[in-house]
Amino acid sequence: MIKKRDDIEEIFHPKGVALYGASPKGGLGNLLIMGLIELGFPNIYPIHPKVDEILGLKAYPNIKQVEGDIDLVIIAVHPRHVKKILYDCIEKKVKGVILFTSGFREIGEKGRNFENEIVQIARNGGIRIIGPNCMGIYCPESRLSFFPSLPLEKGNIAFVSQSGSLSTLVIMSSMLRGIYFSKVISIGNCADLNFNDFLEYFANDENTKVIGCYLEGIENGKEFIKLTKEISRKKPIIMWKVGLTNAGKKAANSHTGSLAGNSLLWEHIFQQTGMIKVHNINQLIEHFGMFQNPVLPKGNKVVVISGPGGPAVSSADACELAGLELAKLSNETKIKLKEILPEFGTGVNNPVDLGLNIAFQPELEYLACEIAGADKNVDMVLIYISVLKKIQIKNFIKVQNKIKKPIALVTTFDISASFKDYSVKDYFQPISPKKAPNYVRKLYNNGISLHNSEQNAALALSNLLKYSKFLRKLK
Amino acid sequence: MIKKRDDIEEIFHPKGVALYGASPKGGLGNLLIMGLIELGFPNIYPIHPKVDEILGLKAYPNIKQVEGDIDLVIIAVHPRHVKKILYDCIEKKVKGVILFTSGFREIGEKGRNFENEIVQIARNGGIRIIGPNCMGIYCPESRLSFFPSLPLEKGNIAFVSQSGSLSTLVIMSSMLRGIYFSKVISIGNCADLNFNDFLEYFANDENTKVIGCYLEGIENGKEFIKLTKEISRKKPIIMWKVGLTNAGKKAANSHTGSLAGNSLLWEHIFQQTGMIKVHNINQLIEHFGMFQNPVLPKGNKVVVISGPGGPAVSSADACELAGLELAKLSNETKIKLKEILPEFGTGVNNPVDLGLNIAFQPELEYLACEIAGADKNVDMVLIYISVLKKIQIKNFIKVQNKIKKPIALVTTFDISASFKDYSVKDYFQPISPKKAPNYVRKLYNNGISLHNSEQNAALALSNLLKYSKFLRKLK
Repeated sequence: MIKKRDDIEEIFHPKGVALYGASPKGGLGNLLIMGLIELGFPNIYPIHPKVDEILGLKAYPNIKQVEGDIDLVIIAVHPRHVKKILYDCIEKKVKGVILFTSGFREIGEKGRNFENEIVQIARNGGIRIIGPNCMGIYCPESRLSFFPSLPLEKGNIAFVSQSGSLSTLVIMSSMLRGIYFSKVISIGNCADLNFNDFLEYFANDENTKVIGCYLEGIENGKEFIKLTKEISRKKPIIMWKVGLTNAGKKAANSHTGSLAGNSLLWEHIFQQTGMIKVHNINQLIEHFGMFQNPVLPKGNKVVVISGPGGPAVSSADACELAGLELAKLSNETKIKLKEILPEFGTGVNNPVDLGLNIAFQPELEYLACEIAGADKNVDMVLIYISVLKKIQIKNFIKVQNKIKKPIALVTTFDISASFKDYSVKDYFQPISPKKAPNYVRKLYNNGISLHNSEQNAALALSNLLKYSKFLRKLK
Repeated sequence: MIKKRDDIEEIFHPKGVALYGASPKGGLGNLLIMGLIELGFPNIYPIHPKVDEILGLKAYPNIKQVEGDIDLVIIAVHPRHVKKILYDCIEKKVKGVILFTSGFREIGEKGRNFENEIVQIARNGGIRIIGPNCMGIYCPESRLSFFPSLPLEKGNIAFVSQSGSLSTLVIMSSMLRGIYFSKVISIGNCADLNFNDFLEYFANDENTKVIGCYLEGIENGKEFIKLTKEISRKKPIIMWKVGLTNAGKKAANSHTGSLAGNSLLWEHIFQQTGMIKVHNINQLIEHFGMFQNPVLPKGNKVVVISGPGGPAVSSADACELAGLELAKLSNETKIKLKEILPEFGTGVNNPVDLGLNIAFQPELEYLACEIAGADKNVDMVLIYISVLKKIQIKNFIKVQNKIKKPIALVTTFDISASFKDYSVKDYFQPISPKKAPNYVRKLYNNGISLHNSEQNAALALSNLLKYSKFLRKLK
């Protein structure tokens, strides 16, 4: 049974936040406070022994001198100050502490002992700790942030990361692709609150529909397996698990002190729990798009549609390698395709080759998608196009709502790419990078995903099918 | 022995070009002629039975009425007109014909017979045919082009493609990444001039340093193997071979009528010939960057350097899976790294974790690269960064010139990405997409390659090592 985690909910929605480590001289602590200011968090209290003002905010020499309530304290100072600060936090009745500070278990035995001591003090004083060695919380609904330039837009993805700076990269990269988050947590060493705690929290979080994870190793494996299996029934978990090779295991141990575990064992865990496996940040973000509102496929038969004939052949390879099968299109479908396609330089078998005419007739892409996608032998669609045009957005959505099958769209040019200084605009009519995020959000909401290679699209479709089978088995 | 192909050289450098198929009504033929106009080709003669002018150029009812020399004729009309045109070309003493027109062998037996007939007529008349069912030639040095918006910038990559529209996509995608071409040829059905002919031509082309290929199937396999093995000694061949699965084979056969061949056999061909294998357009272009002026590695020991610790672990996994080993850094190297890195939140083992401080101190990236790259246990460097900054370009080049080892750079954000409408610019200082191509060209010229995932970087480094071994074996 997944517990409701009001203790974490409180930490994600504090009335006031104090921060140790910002300075008029600049430094990492300032990035944290700049993030909060930019997102408009109302009650920020920088704590500094000597100055009255930091980044335009009134600074206090000690947390106890702050009049307002403080539920969350961020500590970004040298480890030697942490113990004293923690005692002050207990006095101030703080609920949660984000220990940004590094220099604990990840540096060896002495650090581990100190970490244990800190946790003991916090627990005795009724405080939960996030970290140490972490970025903390990004939560647009409560205007919390841990870095400048992060968006205020809310989404329905929660991301739990064992790597700090990665969490920032994931948010920013996603932003360029129209993907936003409900919450992001960089968990660090998990001295107190751990991976499982946050999974449990997100499982019950109404604003979270998909859970993404970057994971090096897990301490309480048994509970993790039980929990993720249960959560996967309600919300897909997209898991970027690293440390699956010997080199990766060593790297994970040196990075966060994690025991990454055996790769065969992890293969079993993925199968057992229904978690969805990805291997890099691009795949992670592409899966975020795919799983926002997916149409679950009934089988593994895919139709490949492409303007460029070459990538169509490559996509056929990618599909087979990902365990998908090319659907055998019915004669009726082929006849209908022939009616819309030019006589020469095209193909109505699977892959469907639209020929060079799409340079003039981009509508062939969604028309072919509608015809081939409606074929009863087809379970899912992979389309390879050069660049995403505005007109395609609404048409693909219309098609998707008719055929009700997953559509994975590969674009050769990244949707964040600027063509402004190349003369290609007239012929390709790409959406400007500024508008792209808002347009592509609509695609995700209608079961259409975006990918940067045929291999990534095939992997995502195959993962969607696996997840679909996992859910069916439960019924 | 690789023959010098003056017959093809002539076709790539025509004095005059006539084109059948452009029309005042628009259509595919107009794209071809627009390409020539944009690149400033001087003597373009549109041939049209009824009009005097097309796209501002004087049009002629028949090629025989053109006074100037015509070495190259592009035919983009219905197949039924082709025979008559060919006879006119023979009279006009044309040297080469690009048969853009589709509807030959790829549509079956009848088409194949017609194709054979056409070739016979051409051969008897002393004309070489490119195609049919192809885009033809892009060659900035002679201002030939087959599509609008292609760059006039010359590079040292030749690309031979069995897919027409793919050739356009490859040129445009490469352009955004600072990669330009000496020549690109879309070969189509290879009724006369075939894959091997163009390989031979590029092998002796002084302006070509790297040969890229998109290939579905090859007819004269024995000659192909002999030729590619010989060419690989002088110039790397980057090969995107598709049709390596059953689904892909069928797709290739339906796309270009190619017999894609057995995948195990192709594995042997790759090993034997020293060709370099890639699997999609991104990898193809990334390898173009890498092989422009590569430093060949001496062994398989890689050092991974990263600001975000997470991707560092993932990179370690990717390296091991690609057959590379993580180098054991010497104590001396570790001590030097400790001197430049902050005390906490960093790591001096391999992977080298630069910690969050790189947000303030981007110089840590190249400094760490210099120290770790100089380690005698290190053969190559993989660096994972968030975004490419201007300052990094010259510094990475300086470092590369000192350590003289290959450097593969993974950027989380695509270098063509526009950040203009996000407020991230101040913190990340990315190069603008407009300037990026010129900056990154310098990287390629100094043995530094760019990649969009750790897996792609590891593959490219591993391929560079394989090529290095292939060359060493010959000595």
